[in-house]
Amino acid sequence: MSYTAPIKDMLFDIQHLARIDEIARMPGFGDAGLDTAAAVLEECAKLTQDVIAPLNVAGDRDPSSFKDGAVRTTPGFKEAFRQYAEGGWQGLQHPVDFGGQGLPKTIGAACGEMVNSANLSFALCPLLTDGAIEALLTAGSDQLKSTYLEKLVSGEWTGTMNLTEPQAGSDLALVRTRAEPQADGSYKVFGTKIYITYGEHDMAPNIVHLVLARVSGAPEGVKGISLFVVPKFMVNDDGSLGARNDVHCVSIEHKLGIKASPTAVLQYGDHGGAIGYLVGEENRGLEYMFIMMNAARYAVGVQGIAVAERAYQHAVAYARERVQSRPVDGSMMKSAPIIHHPDVRRMLMTMRAFTEGCRAMATVAAAAYDAAHHHEDAEVRRQNQAFYEFLVPLVKGYSTEMSLEVTSLGVQVHGGMGFIEETGAAQYYRDAKILTIYEGTTAIQANDLVGRKTARDGGQAARAIAAQVETTEAELLASPSDDAKAVALRLKAARQAYLDVVDFIASQAKADPNAAYAGSVPYLMLAGNLVAGWQLARSLLVALTPEAQAQDAAFMQAKVATARFYAEHILVKAGATRDAIVGGAASVTALPLDAF
Amino acid sequence: MSYTAPIKDMLFDIQHLARIDEIARMPGFGDAGLDTAAAVLEECAKLTQDVIAPLNVAGDRDPSSFKDGAVRTTPGFKEAFRQYAEGGWQGLQHPVDFGGQGLPKTIGAACGEMVNSANLSFALCPLLTDGAIEALLTAGSDQLKSTYLEKLVSGEWTGTMNLTEPQAGSDLALVRTRAEPQADGSYKVFGTKIYITYGEHDMAPNIVHLVLARVSGAPEGVKGISLFVVPKFMVNDDGSLGARNDVHCVSIEHKLGIKASPTAVLQYGDHGGAIGYLVGEENRGLEYMFIMMNAARYAVGVQGIAVAERAYQHAVAYARERVQSRPVDGSMMKSAPIIHHPDVRRMLMTMRAFTEGCRAMATVAAAAYDAAHHHEDAEVRRQNQAFYEFLVPLVKGYSTEMSLEVTSLGVQVHGGMGFIEETGAAQYYRDAKILTIYEGTTAIQANDLVGRKTARDGGQAARAIAAQVETTEAELLASPSDDAKAVALRLKAARQAYLDVVDFIASQAKADPNAAYAGSVPYLMLAGNLVAGWQLARSLLVALTPEAQAQDAAFMQAKVATARFYAEHILVKAGATRDAIVGGAASVTALPLDAF
Repeated sequence: MSYTAPIKDMLFDIQHLARIDEIARMPGFGDAGLDTAAAVLEECAKLTQDVIAPLNVAGDRDPSSFKDGAVRTTPGFKEAFRQYAEGGWQGLQHPVDFGGQGLPKTIGAACGEMVNSANLSFALCPLLTDGAIEALLTAGSDQLKSTYLEKLVSGEWTGTMNLTEPQAGSDLALVRTRAEPQADGSYKVFGTKIYITYGEHDMAPNIVHLVLARVSGAPEGVKGISLFVVPKFMVNDDGSLGARNDVHCVSIEHKLGIKASPTAVLQYGDHGGAIGYLVGEENRGLEYMFIMMNAARYAVGVQGIAVAERAYQHAVAYARERVQSRPVDGSMMKSAPIIHHPDVRRMLMTMRAFTEGCRAMATVAAAAYDAAHHHEDAEVRRQNQAFYEFLVPLVKGYSTEMSLEVTSLGVQVHGGMGFIEETGAAQYYRDAKILTIYEGTTAIQANDLVGRKTARDGGQAARAIAAQVETTEAELLASPSDDAKAVALRLKAARQAYLDVVDFIASQAKADPNAAYAGSVPYLMLAGNLVAGWQLARSLLVALTPEAQAQDAAFMQAKVATARFYAEHILVKAGATRDAIVGGAASVTALPLDAF
Repeated sequence: MSYTAPIKDMLFDIQHLARIDEIARMPGFGDAGLDTAAAVLEECAKLTQDVIAPLNVAGDRDPSSFKDGAVRTTPGFKEAFRQYAEGGWQGLQHPVDFGGQGLPKTIGAACGEMVNSANLSFALCPLLTDGAIEALLTAGSDQLKSTYLEKLVSGEWTGTMNLTEPQAGSDLALVRTRAEPQADGSYKVFGTKIYITYGEHDMAPNIVHLVLARVSGAPEGVKGISLFVVPKFMVNDDGSLGARNDVHCVSIEHKLGIKASPTAVLQYGDHGGAIGYLVGEENRGLEYMFIMMNAARYAVGVQGIAVAERAYQHAVAYARERVQSRPVDGSMMKSAPIIHHPDVRRMLMTMRAFTEGCRAMATVAAAAYDAAHHHEDAEVRRQNQAFYEFLVPLVKGYSTEMSLEVTSLGVQVHGGMGFIEETGAAQYYRDAKILTIYEGTTAIQANDLVGRKTARDGGQAARAIAAQVETTEAELLASPSDDAKAVALRLKAARQAYLDVVDFIASQAKADPNAAYAGSVPYLMLAGNLVAGWQLARSLLVALTPEAQAQDAAFMQAKVATARFYAEHILVKAGATRDAIVGGAASVTALPLDAF
């Protein structure tokens, strides 16, 4: 099944919702405006459609395999990654100083979506490498930067994030991997890390592991965790590769999906100790790790959008072609392509609306990130940072949860064929299931939303978003369009539901934490639903303008229809979510533990 | 992962919701009351827990395989099926005249759930055999009955249902398999059938295929379809097996789940014609097939409940054992089993409430079936038949859709471990996905609900259910219990939402069929939600009685907590579903076809 990058929709969001031309005027972006975005997206579409997407099914059927400590990736992956690296795609958003292109995240996120739509398993290698780059940029010494950054940014080497251990998943306080200081300032690292994506592979000559460990004598819990660079091969002063370091892959996992992406168990220090280098200061590892994590969480949210888009395209193609039963309205007296049946339309519209809504949300989050880092005005930077930080758990949590529903609908549209692996629809369903789990489960995102993003400031950042939504409502109500009015009705109800929940969460987080956290995931879903619906409402307002209509009437008409569908079929759920959170907190924990 | 049959919950439903003692007094049931139910369930629990459940993982890892026209099932399946047959389980609900036990469906459904919880793939063989038995009982000649029924009822042979062809899935009007009348009254059958569950296997010496085909010269469309028996081996007059018939398995499918269940492509008549025998009259095949289908649809609904129960048990066991992070309420100062975390509780309660709600719904549907067939009063039979028929699409559609959510939550509770195949949680997620597809997709169930079950009688049967719900509301409001009052609030709102939708569907089905059918699946989900919530509300009323409390206070307490959770977190969604159906019909089909 081929993939066609949704460039038109991406550029619509980049132009009208993210306002790329304002971003382009910020220092450091060198006029990377709409024309640049369009050119970059066109190039990225070629690579992803022609080179990376065709490897997606192969990766599922002939996945990464492990033998004698080595991982062989799916045939074709290594060559495709070379093309990706040589095209400069790994460095797209990274600093020019280290060989990157320094483009806004607003553009980078769209490219990230394409790579992930093409091939979720493939895309994980650059995704984790981005995380390693972020950590080194933030906290690495000049020595570490000069040794590793250019090679990572160029895609010559790849990076990994090593957090999880068998007993330490979401709970990093339980990390046991230890690091012993050496006389030369380096450390020897000992321990076992699991779930290390691309922890071992044959696509690059070196792998740079970023590893959480405890320095001997460090405090217990998360305050005693430090971050280390542990290269697979030592690096000589001239940049050439030296001895093999004492970090070894002992197995890879047999997984439900993303089978081409090797998920490694890495053993550190079984033969004398793996040589590692401290990143930043001792015991501040968690703080640095959160920088990687936040970048990665956003990127995983984009993965949800990406797999949803791919599943949607696959389902639409089948629905156009599969002929079965007469239309219920009697418009054809013979069996018709199933896209004529209202329930198939409902499923396709649900898939489409979720995907476009989350794409719009992710794009405005990316724009906020760009402004938070590049705007000249410190207050504007601060506001954008707060907005971005509030949105990260929504982009991650809501976009990935919706991808489960969308990929499930994708199978459903195919009927019996969807359950047959050869069709390909089932792969998206299997692949997507990891997205609500890794880089922090949906519950972990929701804890972040409740604790750090809502309760800490008493709901201030949360209410600021509602105020912006209200402005959009007023614009919708001022429009003569029935579509705008219909959307305004649902948007208003959803905003009020959201505000009720924000009040509840802010007031209960300390008073009755069980009640607040019982509603944490539903709150995340409600907030994500509101923000996605709000961005589609903004899209509808743009699409109704004469300028937009003149530019591409059919596209704008579709945008209006999709926004209204979202409001009437998805945003409409907000009130029930509020009622469950606010009215049903006690029943979540009422059943005694021994009654389960 | 072991399986423990939820006998206590099943007997609660059988006793209090289905009122087995009333069923036991009906002619033909020979006092098969609560004691019989308890004894049968205990025996079934032993077989399923000890023999069938241990083969579930093996079936996934070493599935059915195909070679040279033969299918080898997973090692152990054949022996387990022998035990199943020898225990008399295949004949549990079938007539004593043909060697069955003649027990009520109310008891049989609970046993069916156990077999399916133990092993969804294994259970499909008896499930399809039941369908074949039903068809022969209804329309088979005495000759066919005497040749085939005892062998099927005893489990010596197995049966299949052959509907689907490559171009004819949901749309049976497109069936092309043809049957040529022979001089001796038999037919020669030619064609290709796909998706034939246990269409070929090594678990029994003969397979009895029930096949839809067109007699030469029959009318086009569904009015020209007849039903045939085509045995794998011909049967001699003395009942011994004769020549191999001309029906051959040419391949089996590579599927997302239920891998141990062979899904065959069967080729009829490539070597001169497969000998078949007409069931009933020519051109009435679809009518007879619907009898099998209705039995099978109900049974597939039970499969949804079954896999949900198994996923729930698996998730609870993990949540009790996995230690990760401190409780948010500060009740423990160290990392705790994750079942202490509110969001894990929310997930487990959602799984539990869906499962118990759908089990309760399925049990009352089974009781209605029993009364419809055995009650002495014709009017009572008629009412129960109408109630049962209304419930079949809900049992099938709602219980299977909820099983997707439940098995997904089951993976989620496991975190990263859930994505690793060795854990076993992912198997339920993969297995469950077929349930919303086969024996009629959820959309097909919803068409049945809208067309035959609601529009045809102008919503009368639908409103009769609402009237019964209202009676339960009054009982809840009369109770001094806060739990009862809280449930009454949600039940009333859900009933009103449901009535709004029934009015909409009944009025639009002819006037604007696209609008009515755009809301068909949401209507099914709303109706299923209401009925399951209603049955849990009835359960709560029972559980609050002094008699029940005296019998088993802890169990009754859990039932109350589960019913309230269902009302506050699941039933509460009814209003939003109504708003989407009634207010959002037009936006389902607003996007032009070429804009997808």
